[in-house]
Amino acid sequence: MGFKIGLLGLGTVGTGVGEIFANPKGRHPLLQELEIAKVGVRSLEKARSLNLPTEVLTTDLNAIVNDPTIDMVVEVIGGLEPARSLILEAIAQGKHVVTANKAVIARFGEEIFQAATQAGVYVMIEAAVAGGIPVIQPLKESLGANRIHTLIGILNGTTNYILTKMQQSGAAFDDVLAEAQELGYAEADPTADVDGLDAGDKIAILASLAFGGRIDLEQVHREGIRQVSAADINYAKNLGFVIKLLAIAKVPPTTAELPPPQLEARVHPTLVPVDHPLANVNDVYNALLIEANPLGQVMFFGPGAGAGPTASAVVADLINIAALLKTGIVANDPESSRIHPLLACSHQHYCNIAPMNDLVTRFYARFLTKDHPGVIGKLGTVFGNHGVSLESVVQTGIKAELAEIVVVTHDVQEGNFHQALDEIRQMEAISSIPSLLRVL
Amino acid sequence: MGFKIGLLGLGTVGTGVGEIFANPKGRHPLLQELEIAKVGVRSLEKARSLNLPTEVLTTDLNAIVNDPTIDMVVEVIGGLEPARSLILEAIAQGKHVVTANKAVIARFGEEIFQAATQAGVYVMIEAAVAGGIPVIQPLKESLGANRIHTLIGILNGTTNYILTKMQQSGAAFDDVLAEAQELGYAEADPTADVDGLDAGDKIAILASLAFGGRIDLEQVHREGIRQVSAADINYAKNLGFVIKLLAIAKVPPTTAELPPPQLEARVHPTLVPVDHPLANVNDVYNALLIEANPLGQVMFFGPGAGAGPTASAVVADLINIAALLKTGIVANDPESSRIHPLLACSHQHYCNIAPMNDLVTRFYARFLTKDHPGVIGKLGTVFGNHGVSLESVVQTGIKAELAEIVVVTHDVQEGNFHQALDEIRQMEAISSIPSLLRVL
Repeated sequence: MGFKIGLLGLGTVGTGVGEIFANPKGRHPLLQELEIAKVGVRSLEKARSLNLPTEVLTTDLNAIVNDPTIDMVVEVIGGLEPARSLILEAIAQGKHVVTANKAVIARFGEEIFQAATQAGVYVMIEAAVAGGIPVIQPLKESLGANRIHTLIGILNGTTNYILTKMQQSGAAFDDVLAEAQELGYAEADPTADVDGLDAGDKIAILASLAFGGRIDLEQVHREGIRQVSAADINYAKNLGFVIKLLAIAKVPPTTAELPPPQLEARVHPTLVPVDHPLANVNDVYNALLIEANPLGQVMFFGPGAGAGPTASAVVADLINIAALLKTGIVANDPESSRIHPLLACSHQHYCNIAPMNDLVTRFYARFLTKDHPGVIGKLGTVFGNHGVSLESVVQTGIKAELAEIVVVTHDVQEGNFHQALDEIRQMEAISSIPSLLRVL
Repeated sequence: MGFKIGLLGLGTVGTGVGEIFANPKGRHPLLQELEIAKVGVRSLEKARSLNLPTEVLTTDLNAIVNDPTIDMVVEVIGGLEPARSLILEAIAQGKHVVTANKAVIARFGEEIFQAATQAGVYVMIEAAVAGGIPVIQPLKESLGANRIHTLIGILNGTTNYILTKMQQSGAAFDDVLAEAQELGYAEADPTADVDGLDAGDKIAILASLAFGGRIDLEQVHREGIRQVSAADINYAKNLGFVIKLLAIAKVPPTTAELPPPQLEARVHPTLVPVDHPLANVNDVYNALLIEANPLGQVMFFGPGAGAGPTASAVVADLINIAALLKTGIVANDPESSRIHPLLACSHQHYCNIAPMNDLVTRFYARFLTKDHPGVIGKLGTVFGNHGVSLESVVQTGIKAELAEIVVVTHDVQEGNFHQALDEIRQMEAISSIPSLLRVL
């Protein structure tokens, strides 16, 4: 008895998956009951590192998801379409689906998981978040005894690489981005990565699992790292912080409802204390920190992208499905009550996401001021009027007749802080506010 | 439909388990289909923080494992007997078992898992290693696509707490141990912890899962931290290392057989470079670093002991079993082919463990020498004769007419190094060799 896999896409990840199946020895024995029967590609002519029988390759991806001999479909073509339609068609045909596509799951998860539940098939997404690090599984299974209240992740390898290099070299964002693009760590169009959209997709998926409700991606605050300058990284360092792009989802630790009444969900560059576990997660590595009751704090660390790590997660999902099929559970029976309750998605409600103005956090802000006497005093007064108390104020040297003032606040309500800033922007002495970052 | 649990033991962990069931809200919904029906305790009189109906408590633990209404037994009494016998009796009665007992599993795993396979029941052990950190699950499931070649763990919270405090305060081992005992971080008899036996049990369990074979505990080199002095920690610091008690199991990265032809399995205090991910795992925290192909390097970090974290792992296993039972898999049918293939243990062979003398590693050694001229030269000659090349030799101040010499070697074969030491001990100039540590 064996299971036939239809692989959609033979790019980096698809090739990684193929290589695991090409060398099953020393891996889980169940692998040898799985077979890559069809591989959908864009061109049959393209030279490939992976040796596959020509009859396995096809450019007709629809034929694969409609092939009655295929048991499981792996979607690693990426992008929204045709990925979404192919996944839905595979589900409609009663096939189990494994995907690494965070963009599709974050946007169309509701549609996809409803269809999967109806069809009695599994849709597995370990590879969609944090590459080879198991993060979906713990949220679905290993941490089920807990009330999870905080997720903090470094979930985008490209931005973590850029920030690490800026930290190490003191170079400017644009220069490091260009270098990352040459090395293939950043796309030609880096928007999804550097503007925090990719990390937003991922934290939305994790939050949905951790808090038992659907997440409206549009309500997730997504802020990228373009505004982070070498100057900020240097000031942060002197203050005892490193700057990381964090993806955060949290509820008050006392919350005991699923889904919770209200949820924070946000992605933004953040000052992280140097002795924090996430401060040492560098280069393209990812990490997810989870705080839960009664567990406390756990962290998962590893490679967040790349052919091998992502393929490792894809194939783990395939082995998992095969194991369940061998036990005789499921499938394809719409009435089936036998779908594994920890692996099926059953969220009915949307999570209510708190507006950013209600967020209580510490801020770091850098001001360029005309060197007027008493400008620090004026700043302090305005902040004070809006209930913003300052932890530190540092005035640094003059640049082109402008003095630089760096402010770190205590915990403040974001709305009050922005009101204060609006007023400060009107001050004659203030030339500009080049950066505004939150502090963990 | 619900499942009845028999809880053996109401100490720290048992109480932690009870508290999770007493407050199921906000945790996995499946929890509410599980019920603690019986709790076995030593004394019915003892006052307890947990409120349980009196009819639930009993001192007759055998009655619990023989109670036909009980579906799952949780063993958290610890120790070898009666834990082992109660587990085996529960299995014989067709009950699934969840245990946090690393000592029993490391010694009697073969007997227990064979009985479980015959009886068609699950024996789940997530809580037996690294407390609340999911480490058993990834080795059984999430990393199944990989060839695992290295496990390096900080798996004993007591010794990690002691070494961290020695590092921070410069205090001596005995003083910190006494403090740890007062704080309840160390047992009155600390042998199992400080002599590396507990960490040895745990790495044996992890290695068995990672490498697909049984481990003879007697063949695991177990060396504790009693010999680690404040002086060593200080020298290590100056050389750019921290000292950690590491539990290591590894095979050459090229190995592609399960079980591998030969395996390293050892526990010993180790000099870890300060920039290594494990160097910052402090206090009672545990961590497990896994290197695998094609995944690369992942690390799991979190609380390795304590009521909450351990109970989190115990209850996760209970939820997992309940989920499988709900899907209609198993149980109690000896002929059942429906046991989940990733969760059952099927190891037939023992791993062949390499003798320590074959180990290739770097060494740190501290010599007390009578301050003879040219003693360093003599040391160098003897090491050279045995093919031991030195990376650094530091002679430090005189203490009571004795000079202290600290040597760090390049990679050497352990056997050769010990031959050199035997010769060096004979040297008239050598007073003693107070410490001998390996370098990661």
